[in-house]
Amino acid sequence: MIRIGIDMMGGDFAPLEAVKGVAAFTEANANPVHLLLIGDEPILQEHLSKTTIPSSTYTIVHAPEVIEMHEHPTKALKEKQQSSIAVGFHLLASEKIDGFISAGNTGAMMVGALFSIKAIEGVIRPTIGAYIPREDGSLGLLVDVGLNADCKPENLNQFAILGSLFAQHILKIDQPKVGLVNIGEEEGKGNILAQAAYPLLKENHHINFVGNIEGRDILINKADVMVCEGFTGNVVLKLAESVYDIVKRRNIKDEHFERFNFEAYGGVPVLGVAKPVIIGHGISKAIAFKNMIHIACKMKETNLTGKIYESFNQA
Amino acid sequence: MIRIGIDMMGGDFAPLEAVKGVAAFTEANANPVHLLLIGDEPILQEHLSKTTIPSSTYTIVHAPEVIEMHEHPTKALKEKQQSSIAVGFHLLASEKIDGFISAGNTGAMMVGALFSIKAIEGVIRPTIGAYIPREDGSLGLLVDVGLNADCKPENLNQFAILGSLFAQHILKIDQPKVGLVNIGEEEGKGNILAQAAYPLLKENHHINFVGNIEGRDILINKADVMVCEGFTGNVVLKLAESVYDIVKRRNIKDEHFERFNFEAYGGVPVLGVAKPVIIGHGISKAIAFKNMIHIACKMKETNLTGKIYESFNQA
Repeated sequence: MIRIGIDMMGGDFAPLEAVKGVAAFTEANANPVHLLLIGDEPILQEHLSKTTIPSSTYTIVHAPEVIEMHEHPTKALKEKQQSSIAVGFHLLASEKIDGFISAGNTGAMMVGALFSIKAIEGVIRPTIGAYIPREDGSLGLLVDVGLNADCKPENLNQFAILGSLFAQHILKIDQPKVGLVNIGEEEGKGNILAQAAYPLLKENHHINFVGNIEGRDILINKADVMVCEGFTGNVVLKLAESVYDIVKRRNIKDEHFERFNFEAYGGVPVLGVAKPVIIGHGISKAIAFKNMIHIACKMKETNLTGKIYESFNQA
Repeated sequence: MIRIGIDMMGGDFAPLEAVKGVAAFTEANANPVHLLLIGDEPILQEHLSKTTIPSSTYTIVHAPEVIEMHEHPTKALKEKQQSSIAVGFHLLASEKIDGFISAGNTGAMMVGALFSIKAIEGVIRPTIGAYIPREDGSLGLLVDVGLNADCKPENLNQFAILGSLFAQHILKIDQPKVGLVNIGEEEGKGNILAQAAYPLLKENHHINFVGNIEGRDILINKADVMVCEGFTGNVVLKLAESVYDIVKRRNIKDEHFERFNFEAYGGVPVLGVAKPVIIGHGISKAIAFKNMIHIACKMKETNLTGKIYESFNQA
């Protein structure tokens, strides 16, 4: 049975929205999944007693400490061994859970993912991607969105593989089209990094490279996996998120822009580390937690990390 | 009297929309401005004869050749000496006009601006900025948007000065707030370039630096001048442009998103070169031409290039 660990104390609305998310997940999910709810036991007990979540579906793991949003990641993780994030990574590293989810301190989640779980052999730099809603109703993946602000061409080439495997197995896109985010369409355009990454992507037989894509192509389905360094990716993602805020403030009702509510997608997977780790927005609400648990289960079910290992360690 | 040269043959809708733009400008403008309309004389005569533009307001300068959109900039400029762009830069360099506007081959415009007009003393790399509409109805300026895909920290510092002077004198923003586009708010965040640029901007007494801004801040008025290298800036600009396309396709009527019609702003100024040069979108229509003539006049009236010179050559 798949076992997913959830940091119940992470995020701005903890633990209430995490509990609601667990309730929503268990209601909707038919497959056998066991949830390890990590947090302050008395507080969690109290919240859970008010729900109809079957007690057989979860186990509470007591973690009395919380790493706050403003704390220094490495320092906090080291000093707060009883925090929900530290306990979660301990459970993941010791194979007590198959995946770990948190909407808490992003930096601490990154440090935990990179140092207590570690990168898959052959992966130089793990990455985080984000879903991008497209007008045809599908989702694309933008990688990297902030973990790697400075990249080498080979990093982008690896992000393309990691993103493709995620798109193929989790988003169920057959032969996902990979585009290099750039400032012109033709080969040879771009900054030094993009110019150097292009031939690597072109020669990469693990992916379906469709060439350069421009800013105007990001919100249409020209490419399923859109590759860039984390600086541009982060600026683009946050800009797209702000479009949703503007749409809301202006009271515009539109089905497509409704899908710019990035919070609803749950979190972003850390790709290239040895086990499923999902990092949620601090403002995650019930639906985000539900979706994050769902993605973690899918990553385990499809053995995504195993497929990444194979791809990076072929003869 | 201010004399502005206009490439009548540049852009997808030449010369019809250029002629319409000239008509719209002369109708609205009360100040004495003389327009030099550069292009194929018989064709222009025919179009102009159908308008009510007073013939005293313009002079046709015959330029029988056209640099097409797909042509190689440097090669085309050299070989087509009788093209509207080559003639325009010749007039500008020889002080027959005070500013030059074209919606033609962008690359040829860049080459012309950088090599026939040259950078102002002290400016390492001229830049191009783009207007960014903000929700409060104001306009911000994003620099660079593609001319300099790879930058050094000192380039960003200079873009901040160039953008500030433009915002102050042309957008009439008093003490424009300068923000460094980045992936986090605190000093020390970002890629190597942003980390190194931050202290330079902080120490720069020519500007009103307000710190880092994130992707989510670009469409609000957190900063009036938003500084980044041309790779990120270009991707951001084209993404914002595509938001307008989506809004149109989805038939959303909204006053604010109407202002995402970047084409209406006319062109983008080349900042840091010795004379006013405005580069328009290939798809420029009448209103874009009208606005470009207007901006070129303002740049001359306010002596923007002189102010840039002073700023870069103070004792």
